[in-house]
Amino acid sequence: MNTNIAIAGAAGRMGRSLIEACVQTSNTILSVALEQPKSSLIGSDAGELAGVGSLDISVVNDLVSKHFDVLIEFTTPEATLSHLAICRAAHKRMVIGTTGFSGEQREIIEQAGQEIAIVFAPNMSVGVNLTFKLLEIAAKVLGNDVDIEVIEAHHRHKADAPSGTALRMGEIVAETLGRDLSECAVYGRQGKTGERARETIGFETIRAGDIVGEHTVMFADMGERVEISHKASSRMTFANGAMRAAQWIMQKEKGLFDMQDVLGLR
Amino acid sequence: MNTNIAIAGAAGRMGRSLIEACVQTSNTILSVALEQPKSSLIGSDAGELAGVGSLDISVVNDLVSKHFDVLIEFTTPEATLSHLAICRAAHKRMVIGTTGFSGEQREIIEQAGQEIAIVFAPNMSVGVNLTFKLLEIAAKVLGNDVDIEVIEAHHRHKADAPSGTALRMGEIVAETLGRDLSECAVYGRQGKTGERARETIGFETIRAGDIVGEHTVMFADMGERVEISHKASSRMTFANGAMRAAQWIMQKEKGLFDMQDVLGLR
Amino acid sequence: MNTNIAIAGAAGRMGRSLIEACVQTSNTILSVALEQPKSSLIGSDAGELAGVGSLDISVVNDLVSKHFDVLIEFTTPEATLSHLAICRAAHKRMVIGTTGFSGEQREIIEQAGQEIAIVFAPNMSVGVNLTFKLLEIAAKVLGNDVDIEVIEAHHRHKADAPSGTALRMGEIVAETLGRDLSECAVYGRQGKTGERARETIGFETIRAGDIVGEHTVMFADMGERVEISHKASSRMTFANGAMRAAQWIMQKEKGLFDMQDVLGLR
Amino acid sequence: MNTNIAIAGAAGRMGRSLIEACVQTSNTILSVALEQPKSSLIGSDAGELAGVGSLDISVVNDLVSKHFDVLIEFTTPEATLSHLAICRAAHKRMVIGTTGFSGEQREIIEQAGQEIAIVFAPNMSVGVNLTFKLLEIAAKVLGNDVDIEVIEAHHRHKADAPSGTALRMGEIVAETLGRDLSECAVYGRQGKTGERARETIGFETIRAGDIVGEHTVMFADMGERVEISHKASSRMTFANGAMRAAQWIMQKEKGLFDMQDVLGLR
Repeated sequence: MNTNIAIAGAAGRMGRSLIEACVQTSNTILSVALEQPKSSLIGSDAGELAGVGSLDISVVNDLVSKHFDVLIEFTTPEATLSHLAICRAAHKRMVIGTTGFSGEQREIIEQAGQEIAIVFAPNMSVGVNLTFKLLEIAAKVLGNDVDIEVIEAHHRHKADAPSGTALRMGEIVAETLGRDLSECAVYGRQGKTGERARETIGFETIRAGDIVGEHTVMFADMGERVEISHKASSRMTFANGAMRAAQWIMQKEKGLFDMQDVLGLR
Repeated sequence: MNTNIAIAGAAGRMGRSLIEACVQTSNTILSVALEQPKSSLIGSDAGELAGVGSLDISVVNDLVSKHFDVLIEFTTPEATLSHLAICRAAHKRMVIGTTGFSGEQREIIEQAGQEIAIVFAPNMSVGVNLTFKLLEIAAKVLGNDVDIEVIEAHHRHKADAPSGTALRMGEIVAETLGRDLSECAVYGRQGKTGERARETIGFETIRAGDIVGEHTVMFADMGERVEISHKASSRMTFANGAMRAAQWIMQKEKGLFDMQDVLGLR
Repeated sequence: MNTNIAIAGAAGRMGRSLIEACVQTSNTILSVALEQPKSSLIGSDAGELAGVGSLDISVVNDLVSKHFDVLIEFTTPEATLSHLAICRAAHKRMVIGTTGFSGEQREIIEQAGQEIAIVFAPNMSVGVNLTFKLLEIAAKVLGNDVDIEVIEAHHRHKADAPSGTALRMGEIVAETLGRDLSECAVYGRQGKTGERARETIGFETIRAGDIVGEHTVMFADMGERVEISHKASSRMTFANGAMRAAQWIMQKEKGLFDMQDVLGLR
Repeated sequence: MNTNIAIAGAAGRMGRSLIEACVQTSNTILSVALEQPKSSLIGSDAGELAGVGSLDISVVNDLVSKHFDVLIEFTTPEATLSHLAICRAAHKRMVIGTTGFSGEQREIIEQAGQEIAIVFAPNMSVGVNLTFKLLEIAAKVLGNDVDIEVIEAHHRHKADAPSGTALRMGEIVAETLGRDLSECAVYGRQGKTGERARETIGFETIRAGDIVGEHTVMFADMGERVEISHKASSRMTFANGAMRAAQWIMQKEKGLFDMQDVLGLR
């Protein structure tokens, strides 16, 4: 059975990736491409915009009374909440990848989850969520016999270090091993460091070029090492995760879920 | 509590690595360094031989009536079975990493397992055995949405391709996805190949220099990829696994076990 | 001094990357964004199309009497030759990255080079052209003491193997070492291969996901290896190379050049 | 023509690697295996000691009046200078990889170079010395358009960071680009770093397991990156470089040379 998808912010970079993912995924169909009224791209063909050829779906500026099953949002908190109200009234499902909500705004989403079915996840990448699980297992098996290092690389414009994902990886490993990341994290090495203390978790942060996002966690013992890597190459990683979430949410009538639910990793 | 270790083939390359691992592991103590009677190294210090400094343990040529808890074997099938008889009579535990047994010889080991406790594993690397488990989980979550490739590298002297470990990795992935590896494996690409068929599993075999053994399994979707790698740097990977097995087997009175048992991955 | 750029095929994927590169490069200014008359995107803002914000440059369908210094072409042979005639008449410079020309068509470009200045290169990536040079030096120094392997990875849609770039890398290495690639290339390994023959050059071809293009050449000896890698992450690699070529060609009045000229690697 | 090799410190870890390299290199023959008088291994077979099978060369404790062409030294400054006096008197060539000389001691070596032929290099790895050259060329071509990062990994026992080799790589790149490494080096990133400043050179230092030594320099632009890596897997990298130096020095009667001379990279 096909799932009819509405995409908010359709003319933006993430919106175009969502259109592409929607077209490439079997069983998802693009029904609505939504953009804000002031965009110069209202009326243009959604497919041509995304570079996937004409789809005969024009970009529209209004969601009300459109036909669709799931609305996918990677926009602003304000736009997302405005669309949430429409979906709640029309009893439509949502997949929300928007970030930056205040506590109050999150509460509105949680309340909506009592009436409609929503997947709400700050990082919708299937690979990243899988990697979190693999790290937990690896840390459990290798324990305190190995040295653990988290190497991450992002583009030159990224203004914080290490990335939120790298820190989350470190936390998962630290929690599994009963360590406190704030005490055992090392963010750089220079000069006479002395031998490595086993309980530390090292972070190496590369900033270069246009790297979308690469994370490797290394578990190294004498004689061997295990490395678990995630490499994002484009927004398609989030767009594909959103399509997977959109299909999965069709089996739910209401409730608030995240990607661990979608992937069956709880 | 300490485990007293006897090492067979102590003057060989693997034997020296076992001595080194034994010294470096807390709670294991080298008690016996065994070599065949004709070796010119009988009587020399086991520690100096292994390059870890004098240990005051001379290499001996006989196992009978020596004091130890676990005998570790990475020798020949014949030597292993001869020592197995001694251990069975003396009710001592064993860790066997020797390969190349005939069906008949394996049966003798299995029978011994009814009286003494034995870990018997063709690849004692903790990392490799962990990696097998991670691959199973990754294949389960990523399913048929991704392209799967197994890249392995070994030294120039390796005479078969792909490695047994690489093929085992491919089998685990194929079995998890309900595919038959003999039908979906691709061992090289040249010329007009056409687009990649999703259900294939590609193997890329690098042979170069002195690479001890590197395996990477890549799961690639649009927008992201997950890579799980194991890199062996020396025989220490097997030696360390053997020490872990030797400590684990102390809690067993009898039975035949493998590394999945030792690591708690069943 | 600024270079005024005209971009052919401006609404296509490569065209949009060229617009982005043009905006991000200091000293290049977008003057003309050209598209074929039947495109629905004629008249739209070139910057919005490329996702870099409004530039007040509308996409136009005619090149004649437009103001620019260099025309950049990554289109079809037919479109390129039609624009070549206009540039020749107007005495404008060109940067041509279009591929697929017939011998006859190439001759027309060569003749034009006697009157106007043209950079003509099938792969305009600065990194790839640099890598070619590095490989030559490495092969010269390491000679026949090392095992050489070329590992490449491309997206699942690529229909030939190994890539043209990988083969060119192999050729450069083979020529430097006095080998004939057609005799020493190995494109896959399976079964009882025996020890590696030193003079072979191995190719390992990965096809997976959306990998834009990764090439690594490994030179491996006992105890060490040198690896030279090029990783393309987007069409921006070609777009940036084209901008570098466009600025470089401004110092030439006529002649046909390639990227080795532009980079000073002859 | 064969070169007859004498190896000082033959029973040590580096000495054993030198014996192995000597046996595996065509045109080098092990003539003398030297160890200090107090070693318990005097008299044992040099080949068995190195794990390459019996060579019928016993470890001896005196160099005087032994037959050989080149003495290879990776020992202590004191032992090296003592052997240097013997070689100078007997007019023998030397390859010196020993480190830790004082200024005064270096002068003695330089004076000896006026009478005998010596290769003197703190890092005798062919690959590392080649890599230095490749980095210079890459920096020259890519210039200030790219972000440059130096990633290195070493075993857990290494007590300084980054490695001397990593710092030398950074210096080569910085000098080529007219930068001062002491001003542009970044040794760690944490917190609100802001966008990357183009002129910085980042160092990421991994400390884990038994990694012998891995260095990668990344040059990253929008759309592509070039990576040049050196991976040491054992002391064989130095042992092989020493054999190459020993063969090369046979064509010289006197003079002090380094690995750039040996490799023809001046």
